[in-house]
Amino acid sequence: MNILEMMRKCRSYRRFDATYDIYKNELIQLVNIARLAPSARNMQPLRYRLVYTRQECNQVFPHLAWAGYLKDWEGPAEDERPTAYMIVTRDSSLSDRIFCDDGLAIQAMLLGAVEMGLGGCIIGAFKKNEIREALKIDEKYEILYVIALGKPTEEIILENICDDDIKYWRSADGVHHVPKRSIEDLIL
Amino acid sequence: MNILEMMRKCRSYRRFDATYDIYKNELIQLVNIARLAPSARNMQPLRYRLVYTRQECNQVFPHLAWAGYLKDWEGPAEDERPTAYMIVTRDSSLSDRIFCDDGLAIQAMLLGAVEMGLGGCIIGAFKKNEIREALKIDEKYEILYVIALGKPTEEIILENICDDDIKYWRSADGVHHVPKRSIEDLIL
Repeated sequence: MNILEMMRKCRSYRRFDATYDIYKNELIQLVNIARLAPSARNMQPLRYRLVYTRQECNQVFPHLAWAGYLKDWEGPAEDERPTAYMIVTRDSSLSDRIFCDDGLAIQAMLLGAVEMGLGGCIIGAFKKNEIREALKIDEKYEILYVIALGKPTEEIILENICDDDIKYWRSADGVHHVPKRSIEDLIL
Repeated sequence: MNILEMMRKCRSYRRFDATYDIYKNELIQLVNIARLAPSARNMQPLRYRLVYTRQECNQVFPHLAWAGYLKDWEGPAEDERPTAYMIVTRDSSLSDRIFCDDGLAIQAMLLGAVEMGLGGCIIGAFKKNEIREALKIDEKYEILYVIALGKPTEEIILENICDDDIKYWRSADGVHHVPKRSIEDLIL
């Protein structure tokens, strides 16, 4: 699979097979991929908290907000929940600004997840203090993102944007539709 | 090549074959890859200015700062300069915050570049106004990063970090050395 095909497969999945276990070693492989991403001034300030046990997954889930545009959907049902999380943090003792280090590392990990037959969703809306407390993450580490991971069970279709409406939506058959801007729209 | 191998090959190259042309169509392919990256609230606020003619490359180059840690090196010599640039901007009419959209898109493009036999370097230190003027970029677009692109001619070696010194360095034989933190150091 080339990069374009991998990127097409690398969607923001929000429904997973809750019976599919993800192991610590798989998350370590993802960190090893992120480790090789570029870093501003080579500071490498990102740190990762791996969440893969049922118990800890259950502690993280209630503090996440899902799919802002799907007003009638409260997030994945019990049998659709992620079976692992990668908590992306910044070691605040190393640098105040991380430039785009976070996205660089996360994109690399998401592609690694695709290669493993997994899928993930970057969650930026979550209760920081509650997650910090549940996972006993030291104050020194700013929690930036929670990446939900699992074996995807939903179908996602990319569409052309229409009338500048960028809201993703779900059709009656459960398929998730994502409007994407055209190449021409993105080039100055 | 799997993602781990591609990431290993995807280094921040700063010396290129200045005779190697990069074509508009290759840059469009990279935008098409970036187009598929995740975007916060699916806003897709990034816009790209493609630079690939000799004339425009010459206009961009003087405004870039290279490799902060290499104090004795003023940047690539004339025969080592990039032969294209991707200027990454944010459409300020769409969103104030882009979260990690920039890094997500840039990592995807850099992997695409590796697949094309190219290499790139994310430059965050540059004279914004001068580049805006040279390329006639509208004020509406905030210039975030300049990605230098070319056919790499330098060898880069990844090393284990020692005494917490993260500064990359160049040995007498011209090889560029980059200390990387270990997997263990990155996991909380």
